[in-house]
This record gives sequence, structure tokens and C-alpha cells, in this order.
Amino acid sequence: MIRHTVVFRLRHDAGSEAEAGFLRTAREQLTPIPGVERFEVLRQTGSQSAYRFSLSMEFADAATYAGYNDHPAHQAFVQDRWIPEVEEFLELDFEVHA
Amino acid sequence: MIRHTVVFRLRHDAGSEAEAGFLRTAREQLTPIPGVERFEVLRQTGSQSAYRFSLSMEFADAATYAGYNDHPAHQAFVQDRWIPEVEEFLELDFEVHA
Repeated sequence: MIRHTVVFRLRHDAGSEAEAGFLRTAREQLTPIPGVERFEVLRQTGSQSAYRFSLSMEFADAATYAGYNDHPAHQAFVQDRWIPEVEEFLELDFEVHA
Repeated sequence: MIRHTVVFRLRHDAGSEAEAGFLRTAREQLTPIPGVERFEVLRQTGSQSAYRFSLSMEFADAATYAGYNDHPAHQAFVQDRWIPEVEEFLELDFEVHA
């Protein structure tokens, strides 16, 4: 299992319709991609980081994860929404430690 | 639900006994604290971050999370292991976005 996550801050105002639209589109556009499991949209609520949201999803293995990265729906989301609307982000991927 | 996570890099060499001991102690000392659910020790495998491990756990609510923070077993772990052995870390807490 690979858990792919990203924490980020948007250029939009907190609570704005643009913010809600970004998060809604992320769910609608990424969830149907084959192999995506346990998709979550999260608020980052800790006071020690300026990141405000996170997307988290799981893949069965590296090949499935690669298929997601290359999928046209993911590529379109990155180009059309992620790059223009995200101010700062950190990508973190995890595997369970034995 | 509050998911409390921290990503970090240890001062120890990768694959060392000191590294394994830190991770083992984290699990042994923190898991029994009341209110800790879904405790996970994770490896950070993404190439875009220098953090190498993560601890993740969930709490039912803010009061339970506060009880964990104040618990003597957590305080002892922070003083005796975390501060001396962790080189760099980032704390991220999450709640599910409606």
C-alpha cells in the first residue's frame, strides 16, 4: 500500500466559493481514476503549519500509482487547477513501516 | 475525528539499530495512551521531501487529543527520545473536510 498525500495552501480566500470549487473539483476529477482508494479531502488544523488542506489517497502498488500520475484526468487537474490555484504545497508519500 | 501526524528525520543512520529502537519505542510508549486510535509508523517514500518517517494517530475529539498531549508517557517520550533524536520535523493535524 502506498498512501499518496499532499498538503497545500490555495491562493483563494478562506471560505470562498473559489476554495470550495477547487476542493469539489479535486474530488470529482481524481476519485474516479482507476486504482484510487480511500480518497480524502482534509483540513490541516494544526497551528504549527501554514498549509490549510490536504488530499490523501491510497494505491495498491507502485504501478497503480504510476497509472494515476499518468492518467489524463490527473494531468488535466494539475494543469488546469493545481498549478494556477495552489500557492504552496508539500508532497508526502507513505508506506507502512514493518 | 482528529488525525495527528508528524513527519520527521532522525539523527541516526538509515537502517541503524538506533533508528529501529526509536521507532519501536514510539509504538510501545504511545500506543497504550488512552484515546490513541489507528496508530501507524510509516516510512516517507516520496522523493520531494527529506523527511524519512511519520507517526500517525487518530483521536475522537479535541479533549482526547489534549489528554494525550498531557499524558506522562507522551511527555516522557518527547523529553527522552524525541528532542535528542529527531533532527527535523513537521507536525500536521487533519480533520475531514465536509
